[in-house]
Amino acid sequence: MAKTAIQPTRDEDFPTWYQAVVQQGELAEMAHVRGCMVIKPWGYGIWELLRDQMDRRIRETGHENAYFPLFVPLSYIRKEAAHVEGFAKEMAVVTHHRLEMRDGELVPAGELEEPVVVRPTSETIIGESMKRWIQSYRDLPLLLNQWANVVRWEMRPRVLLRTVEFLWQEGHTAHASPGEAREETAKMHEVYREFAEHVLAMPVIAGEKPASERFPGAENTYTIEAMMQDGKALQCGTSHFLGQNFSRAADMIFTDENGELVHPWTTSWGVSTRLIGGLVMVHGDDDGLRIPPAVAPTQIVVIPYTRDDERDDALLAYCRSVAAEVESTARFRNGPVRVKVDERLHRPVDKKWQWIKRGVPIIVELGGREADAGTVTFRRRSAANERETVGRAEFAADVGALLEELQSGYLDQARAFMAANTRDDIVDFEGFTAAFAVEGRTPFVLAKWCERASCEEPLKPLAVTIRCLPLAQRGGEAPCVVCGQPATIDAVFARSY
Amino acid sequence: MAKTAIQPTRDEDFPTWYQAVVQQGELAEMAHVRGCMVIKPWGYGIWELLRDQMDRRIRETGHENAYFPLFVPLSYIRKEAAHVEGFAKEMAVVTHHRLEMRDGELVPAGELEEPVVVRPTSETIIGESMKRWIQSYRDLPLLLNQWANVVRWEMRPRVLLRTVEFLWQEGHTAHASPGEAREETAKMHEVYREFAEHVLAMPVIAGEKPASERFPGAENTYTIEAMMQDGKALQCGTSHFLGQNFSRAADMIFTDENGELVHPWTTSWGVSTRLIGGLVMVHGDDDGLRIPPAVAPTQIVVIPYTRDDERDDALLAYCRSVAAEVESTARFRNGPVRVKVDERLHRPVDKKWQWIKRGVPIIVELGGREADAGTVTFRRRSAANERETVGRAEFAADVGALLEELQSGYLDQARAFMAANTRDDIVDFEGFTAAFAVEGRTPFVLAKWCERASCEEPLKPLAVTIRCLPLAQRGGEAPCVVCGQPATIDAVFARSY
Repeated sequence: MAKTAIQPTRDEDFPTWYQAVVQQGELAEMAHVRGCMVIKPWGYGIWELLRDQMDRRIRETGHENAYFPLFVPLSYIRKEAAHVEGFAKEMAVVTHHRLEMRDGELVPAGELEEPVVVRPTSETIIGESMKRWIQSYRDLPLLLNQWANVVRWEMRPRVLLRTVEFLWQEGHTAHASPGEAREETAKMHEVYREFAEHVLAMPVIAGEKPASERFPGAENTYTIEAMMQDGKALQCGTSHFLGQNFSRAADMIFTDENGELVHPWTTSWGVSTRLIGGLVMVHGDDDGLRIPPAVAPTQIVVIPYTRDDERDDALLAYCRSVAAEVESTARFRNGPVRVKVDERLHRPVDKKWQWIKRGVPIIVELGGREADAGTVTFRRRSAANERETVGRAEFAADVGALLEELQSGYLDQARAFMAANTRDDIVDFEGFTAAFAVEGRTPFVLAKWCERASCEEPLKPLAVTIRCLPLAQRGGEAPCVVCGQPATIDAVFARSY
Repeated sequence: MAKTAIQPTRDEDFPTWYQAVVQQGELAEMAHVRGCMVIKPWGYGIWELLRDQMDRRIRETGHENAYFPLFVPLSYIRKEAAHVEGFAKEMAVVTHHRLEMRDGELVPAGELEEPVVVRPTSETIIGESMKRWIQSYRDLPLLLNQWANVVRWEMRPRVLLRTVEFLWQEGHTAHASPGEAREETAKMHEVYREFAEHVLAMPVIAGEKPASERFPGAENTYTIEAMMQDGKALQCGTSHFLGQNFSRAADMIFTDENGELVHPWTTSWGVSTRLIGGLVMVHGDDDGLRIPPAVAPTQIVVIPYTRDDERDDALLAYCRSVAAEVESTARFRNGPVRVKVDERLHRPVDKKWQWIKRGVPIIVELGGREADAGTVTFRRRSAANERETVGRAEFAADVGALLEELQSGYLDQARAFMAANTRDDIVDFEGFTAAFAVEGRTPFVLAKWCERASCEEPLKPLAVTIRCLPLAQRGGEAPCVVCGQPATIDAVFARSY
């Protein structure tokens, strides 16, 4: 069996494979402060592409970006703590505003009168701003979004999936009627679903969370759930209808068209750098990352195959001219193609493996033979053992379509994987238990649930949760897969991150 | 005299005018936590345009973006404190990682073994990463940039100019030779100069800081200095050649082409949200902001002049069709024009004044008369009392060029202001003192300096500093303007923010 670039393989040890792929694919590393990560240029490039394409959707649905303070006063947290039962308590607390040298030691000094917290989310601080900005129905809807870093002091951090600091966008909106706020919640949920599939090539199940899994204070929480290659679910984005709970807690009030004073209805919704962790676990293989073209910072890398690792100016010139031709000719989704000549003075074969592990969609290898014949030799990352040689003009003319094909190929493959690992044939709890009593990959189970919280209890020993109640319901009545009582709701059960 | 939209006027009270313009122009507000600001959608839109245009330049000069942790371990700061005399001590210190309810009070809990600091800059943390990433000359140059929030616990905060938290980019690069690092420092200095003039329409003086004003640990600090309308200088961007000082402190070492172990030469450079404060003070007038088209989130606003504040669907349709025509026809700097119909249900005249104060470059006012005649009535923000009416096709065809004209008009006006308020005729300290002994606006003084630190002492009682030694030197020898000794260096003296 061929040795794989990543050790161990996915089948051997999925969590260790994940760490290795993230590290060797140069996405990110845990460093400096416990639980914090450095997002390296290749990983950050993916984030920027993801962010820009998400940002365009957020604007097109009428939202405006703004920026709110990193620090939250303790008094705001106190309001939330009183209001919300299960509010997150693990947060970074700033108690001093100075460092002083005392006896050769640096010590905190300048104690704050009231400590501040590094935002775990900006719900409260944006709420306090909205309260001042909203006077009348004419000021509504107020549709805000923020791109920011947030901090939650995670006890079991995991690179890109659960880190003390992460990057995200958080939408916060206020509306004059519950119907409009519900519509907003559904709209952004659909934006997330379409984004996951179209941009990340990541099939997801869109649905509502059961009450037990709702965001504290939300009346409804909607989620998109993706299947990782170990069969676990990753919650990739959520959209919350908050009713008047947060506006009441924050004392937000507006005068409606009839002159009545009313609390607005609010929503919030977010996605984070966790999506990159999802990309890794959906598309990666035993040779490393595979990045869908839509979010690949470099879609095509050109490697000059010099005889030794010395400079070959004629070959370099050929590589550059091929890249320039692609840049000026090829298009991917109405934009230019991102092509790069890797001119570094490393061994070509080392560079090739580095790019395979980084998951670049197309690797072009050009040597003297190609330069003489005016051809291009390339391989797809998705079939890394197969090389193909075509004329350079042909390559430039066709490579845009090839990238589109690769993008949909990634989505199709992930869809097929999810379908193959989803069980919709389990009718009782015996079968259910058996489905999760396996070594290695566990399934998604699509089955009926009676909507009683008591039926979530027996799931706990299995480490299984209800991931969501899919928007797409099959209808009909059947016994609840846990208790056997009549049930009409479809639910997706799975282990999760 | 006509009443101005902003009270007081610039001449009456410049600092209060500044606060009023920022507030009424809806750029930002100080809120929630002492010294912190909320950047409102209009202000954040300016920042995004500024950021994207700066980011393009940073990429085109070969840099890659990455992201480093918000928190810096105390041990890193200790190294820097030992190394750098004047290191900034006012920083937010995180000492706890949990909030707990005790006797109905929220209190910090979970004390950290070692406190961490919220980054005042990422110099040390990026240095520690580079140290691990750099092994050989093949890994150099390493050209990184980060867009991030940073925190400095300012005692006298001022919106957009000096805030506890602000947004910035910080470039950090490492090179195999001092010459290459110096070249990098100069290159980014020039990028900043060109950006200020071309994008912000803000003329600047580019030069080197005297030793007394260097970034602690830098061998050379280069700056761009702009003149505000009160005659004070604003440092708008700096680029530092750090020699081997930081690489030595961080223990960064690489193997050079001869197999020798060497510390790399490093640089750093940055600009921040302070630039928006500069925009206000360079271009604003007594009616509020004036935003140059290149950074205006909306370049053309269309206001439907309904008879009362009710909806008029026919007029709205006309407004939208004019906007659509502009969008599909007009170009500004090779991109589409940003045009928006203000459909809110407020009184048209209130909306007009709101947009004047926001500084939108062109305001279009459309009523029944325009809709019937197929015309467009508009005013330029830079001549807000003059209205002009043209055919709608003509407007769409010409408005791109008009925006270009406005952009260069802003630059020309600011240049003329700077020229008019720069004194190059002062030859002795008596004249120098007199120039600054005025009520109101003070000048930039371009004069000779003997390069002795002792000649900076007499400047202190005048609250004047040497802003920079301009790259463009006039040559020749003349007496130092302070001590009268022979001098060859030109320096710019001014009060500053």
